[in-house]
Amino acid sequence: MDQRQRRNANGWRLGVDVGGTKIATLLVDDDNRVWASVQRPTDTRTPDHALQSLADAIWETLKQADLPIRLLAGIGIGIPGQVDTQSGIVRHAVNLGWQSVDLRGFINATFGTACVIENDVRAAALGIQRYWLAGSIDSILYVSIGTGIAAGMILDGAVYRGSHGMAGEIGHARFGSSTIRCRCGNYGCLEAVVAGPAIANYAQSLLSTFPHSQLQHQTSITTSAVYTAAEAGDELGLAVAHMVGDQLAQALYTMVLAYDCDHIVLGGGVSRAGSAFFSPIEQALDGLRQQSSLAASLLPAGRVKLLDRDFAAGAWGGIALLDSQALARVAQAQLA
Amino acid sequence: MDQRQRRNANGWRLGVDVGGTKIATLLVDDDNRVWASVQRPTDTRTPDHALQSLADAIWETLKQADLPIRLLAGIGIGIPGQVDTQSGIVRHAVNLGWQSVDLRGFINATFGTACVIENDVRAAALGIQRYWLAGSIDSILYVSIGTGIAAGMILDGAVYRGSHGMAGEIGHARFGSSTIRCRCGNYGCLEAVVAGPAIANYAQSLLSTFPHSQLQHQTSITTSAVYTAAEAGDELGLAVAHMVGDQLAQALYTMVLAYDCDHIVLGGGVSRAGSAFFSPIEQALDGLRQQSSLAASLLPAGRVKLLDRDFAAGAWGGIALLDSQALARVAQAQLA
Repeated sequence: MDQRQRRNANGWRLGVDVGGTKIATLLVDDDNRVWASVQRPTDTRTPDHALQSLADAIWETLKQADLPIRLLAGIGIGIPGQVDTQSGIVRHAVNLGWQSVDLRGFINATFGTACVIENDVRAAALGIQRYWLAGSIDSILYVSIGTGIAAGMILDGAVYRGSHGMAGEIGHARFGSSTIRCRCGNYGCLEAVVAGPAIANYAQSLLSTFPHSQLQHQTSITTSAVYTAAEAGDELGLAVAHMVGDQLAQALYTMVLAYDCDHIVLGGGVSRAGSAFFSPIEQALDGLRQQSSLAASLLPAGRVKLLDRDFAAGAWGGIALLDSQALARVAQAQLA
Repeated sequence: MDQRQRRNANGWRLGVDVGGTKIATLLVDDDNRVWASVQRPTDTRTPDHALQSLADAIWETLKQADLPIRLLAGIGIGIPGQVDTQSGIVRHAVNLGWQSVDLRGFINATFGTACVIENDVRAAALGIQRYWLAGSIDSILYVSIGTGIAAGMILDGAVYRGSHGMAGEIGHARFGSSTIRCRCGNYGCLEAVVAGPAIANYAQSLLSTFPHSQLQHQTSITTSAVYTAAEAGDELGLAVAHMVGDQLAQALYTMVLAYDCDHIVLGGGVSRAGSAFFSPIEQALDGLRQQSSLAASLLPAGRVKLLDRDFAAGAWGGIALLDSQALARVAQAQLA
């Protein structure tokens, strides 16, 4: 065993973030240096096509680094669905058309290597805690705001899943008085108010109130167009951005009261609008801090962070799932 | 070592629930049989008087069972304040007039025995998980609804405190659109809407709307009178009970989405009204279940429970703090 292996001994690891539209990978060595990374579209025509996309992305990654598969310590995968981390079976991965897929069985059979699978938001939370915050923080809440809203938690250093793997489904909690019906059946759920489609719908509903908005010229309003407008000082764009900021600040404060975590990190498609998205949230948090010393002590400036848009949280989460300890547990489970 | 000691080896343990108005104790043997229990008022004239009340309650308990202090394995205490579980120092115990008290030092000096201290709501959560639910459930949320509202969590079998000991301060989260100002400075906090004083105030504000209510005859309306009226079918009482039920159901559902725990247990002074308090919560939860299959799956009937009013959760929590493992850790810390 050479010096490098003794120091870390994680070996070559491949992390994969499987999304409904694209698959992203990272291949890192023992020192977490990136040797290859691949992004390719997810083929969702059938469940088998989606599996094949995943396999192709992995082969392509190995090829890019010219790494023989036998040198790979393992593959870590974050996937949008309910993951049975014991059996490696993925259920209700709606975006991939999967009812129930033995994903670990597929990876084992195709690549002959160890495989750890986790729900995508939880994997991203782990990737953020280990590699974006450099592992120095014990408890974080990662909130992904995209087509839906969900949170992944690292509490006291470990992924927290809850009793039925459903912890962090805060997109279906109600924080305000909105009566918008959510696809879950309830009213006023957070994701029915401030997830991507809701933001675009809200902007659409305000068009007649802001006749001079630059959004009047859009054939169909997207969340990204709303934030571009807000960035340019457009009043409709700003009105929407502040509604989103107020609602999210309230939800984030509630989550801090519930979990008392060190950091809350915001990511997901909507968050990629950057400061046009984040500044109104910070302003609303400031309002809470000014009203209440409890809020000021639990939400000091800097506790809520915007994820760097270039950080591949999901794929790094896949890498983090493969730290030597986790891998030892998997090897044991697979032998048992 | 005789047979009984080998099986359990927890020994004689004394649990104490220290409240702002009364102190309750339990003394149990190795098989958790109760040998003595004391309830006495808390003398809060000065911080030292409060400490003396605690010491007196402990002496009285030992005397009741005629147990020599040297046979006691330890004293476990739940106390309303911020507890540094490492040092045994209690801070901001407002109801006791304590700014900062070295409670473990006091107990060690007075009784010469090991002592474990925890925040009262967390201690109660542990007592409920170990002794009311018989330890069969890994993750519970205990919500205490009294003068204030707070939650204690047992997650994956362990007390969860958060990064700064503030996890579960859900009394200051906002779930609806109320604009009532809370003593924390923010608006619409859960405890500003449905804690004991808020319930009485809300009933008072509705008096003119319900001229035939039996509450018209009260000189000052108490929460207990509101629920007595609701129990008797009084329309004002019922209106208040349903407002409380709706708000709490929304808050509890949010907590289930956040933590995905096995059970939520409701306790505290307000909950002692029994079914007049609990039925409207169950009705509101039923409404959520009927609207959403997610709510139905996360909140099946029986997941939210009302604590038996005779169960001394806090004192049993003190006992639970003294299980042999916890005590070993304390002994180690005290020797270190």
